[in-house]
Amino acid sequence: MNIYDIAEMAGVSIATVSRVVNGSDKVSETTRQKVLNVIDKAGYTPNVFAQGLGLNTMHTVGILVPDISDIYMSSAVFYLEGCLHKYGYDCILSCSGFETKQKEQHIHMLLDKHIDALILVGSTYAGSGRDHAKTDYIRDAAEKVPVFIINGAVEGKNIYSSVCDDRRAVYVVTRKLIGKGRRHILFLTDSHSYSSNEKMAGYEKALNDEGLPVEGNLKIHVKNDIHYVRDLLLKSEAICFDSVICTNDSIAVGVVKFAKERGLSIPREMDIVGYNNSVLAVSCEPEISSIDNHTSEICDGTIENVISVLQGDSNVRKHFTVPCTLVKRSTTDF
Amino acid sequence: MNIYDIAEMAGVSIATVSRVVNGSDKVSETTRQKVLNVIDKAGYTPNVFAQGLGLNTMHTVGILVPDISDIYMSSAVFYLEGCLHKYGYDCILSCSGFETKQKEQHIHMLLDKHIDALILVGSTYAGSGRDHAKTDYIRDAAEKVPVFIINGAVEGKNIYSSVCDDRRAVYVVTRKLIGKGRRHILFLTDSHSYSSNEKMAGYEKALNDEGLPVEGNLKIHVKNDIHYVRDLLLKSEAICFDSVICTNDSIAVGVVKFAKERGLSIPREMDIVGYNNSVLAVSCEPEISSIDNHTSEICDGTIENVISVLQGDSNVRKHFTVPCTLVKRSTTDF
Repeated sequence: MNIYDIAEMAGVSIATVSRVVNGSDKVSETTRQKVLNVIDKAGYTPNVFAQGLGLNTMHTVGILVPDISDIYMSSAVFYLEGCLHKYGYDCILSCSGFETKQKEQHIHMLLDKHIDALILVGSTYAGSGRDHAKTDYIRDAAEKVPVFIINGAVEGKNIYSSVCDDRRAVYVVTRKLIGKGRRHILFLTDSHSYSSNEKMAGYEKALNDEGLPVEGNLKIHVKNDIHYVRDLLLKSEAICFDSVICTNDSIAVGVVKFAKERGLSIPREMDIVGYNNSVLAVSCEPEISSIDNHTSEICDGTIENVISVLQGDSNVRKHFTVPCTLVKRSTTDF
Repeated sequence: MNIYDIAEMAGVSIATVSRVVNGSDKVSETTRQKVLNVIDKAGYTPNVFAQGLGLNTMHTVGILVPDISDIYMSSAVFYLEGCLHKYGYDCILSCSGFETKQKEQHIHMLLDKHIDALILVGSTYAGSGRDHAKTDYIRDAAEKVPVFIINGAVEGKNIYSSVCDDRRAVYVVTRKLIGKGRRHILFLTDSHSYSSNEKMAGYEKALNDEGLPVEGNLKIHVKNDIHYVRDLLLKSEAICFDSVICTNDSIAVGVVKFAKERGLSIPREMDIVGYNNSVLAVSCEPEISSIDNHTSEICDGTIENVISVLQGDSNVRKHFTVPCTLVKRSTTDF
């Protein structure tokens, strides 16, 4: 129960409840009594009530994303903010970009705001997962507030992490493509992040397990831009491939445009798999089969952890994994 | 000049500067002297420095959006946050949904955080522009902090607003369609907001100016969902139309899917115009001509206003308008 419930029960606005609690004289005596009666019945002491109003604590969680204009990240922030709000917490959002120095700066600015916890969204904060030193800035932050990482694993005290099982999802899809007879599977990624490396590891393991070579020229780093991807593939006559796994849907849309321009039949002559199951996957024709990384699930789980840690619960999972699933549409037929 | 510049000039981390300023004993004497020398040379007094660190002021602007998972709004927040950060301000983000009661609640929570200013993103906060009482909650907020509205006009003291010229943009496009010979122009919108009403007013004025009737069954409210729009049009045999103006790109993608399923040639048999010039406009085939509402420009202008008002400048524009332009692609030929 909070100020909003009190307002509703008393049949007055939140502003009025606020005025009564703060002793303003702009409230009529009748209204004042009505509000105070509800507060009395609800068993509130002024002090507890003040806490609910955020007077004794900021009740604020810092959320850091590299780029809020990215579809995946804005949808994650949407879930996180909604969940936090339910628990009476607000969020301070900061967008750091992808450079380490900028990330550090933004974390410091957030810590200066007396946040109760810090959430890092996106695997860029976990580095490549191969260089421990590059994540020291996260351990530094964790000395001040608990840190929660969405889709990245970082070791350390007071750090809680979650990942979606990207490695396994790409492994399964790659094996399905091989089972169907594909032998030249192109892997397109726009990132060197932990998550991107996990996806590539799944791709390579599937090839290895099937006794196929991992061809260097079939693993390409591209820009996250539809036309860039289309044009790059149109120019790359030398690369021979019969299917494509992309680390996001925007890249996959570029591949669809390439295949159509070449007159290829999808999926008969070319399978295409996207990632994130975003609105982009259903905006083109044929609609794209896309790996769904269950953003809402990973965000819900993270906020549960945040609240548990802030309430002093000692049984919080240090790390949890959410499975990914392929949402089948018209660019694959398995 | 701020803590980050000091850190760079002293060749140490921000954390180290922070420790020196806060008198921590975890810093070596050599490092301490190096940092203090830089601070001395920069002419900082501890007090001014403390301000820069956010100790005496929160330096925080509240940003309220109805839905951060919406492409237009997440891109607006991206620009706003980046701009604010340059001026040393952080942002507290809150997502209110579209209900008035929820909007009020979120504004109260933001005001409780001692924000310096409040930015409302999206024309939903301005109501329909026809009912003054429905925007009283904004005037209430403006009694506490300056309020800045992005794409909506609300009258009131301490309220600053900006709109993109949606009415004119749709007026121009509608006249072009009529000039080309179109007589049955469908208007699809997903909203009753100020901005949506402006767009519809432009559509109606163009029809009037050309002596054409405004047909009620050609103005349809739809869900913001690609497949919903496609299926609705496929079912609506009775509605006869030769071109479509949509109030966002997602609706326009649905129209493209409808036209292709019907085997219509675009734009020969049907023109389609989207709105927002988002990535969705280029994700389908043919790529969609879309009205660009210059999000970055309206956000930059708003932050300039925020900073001017906070600095006590008395010459701030109460209201400014940004023009919209049609980005021509393959779903129109004018």
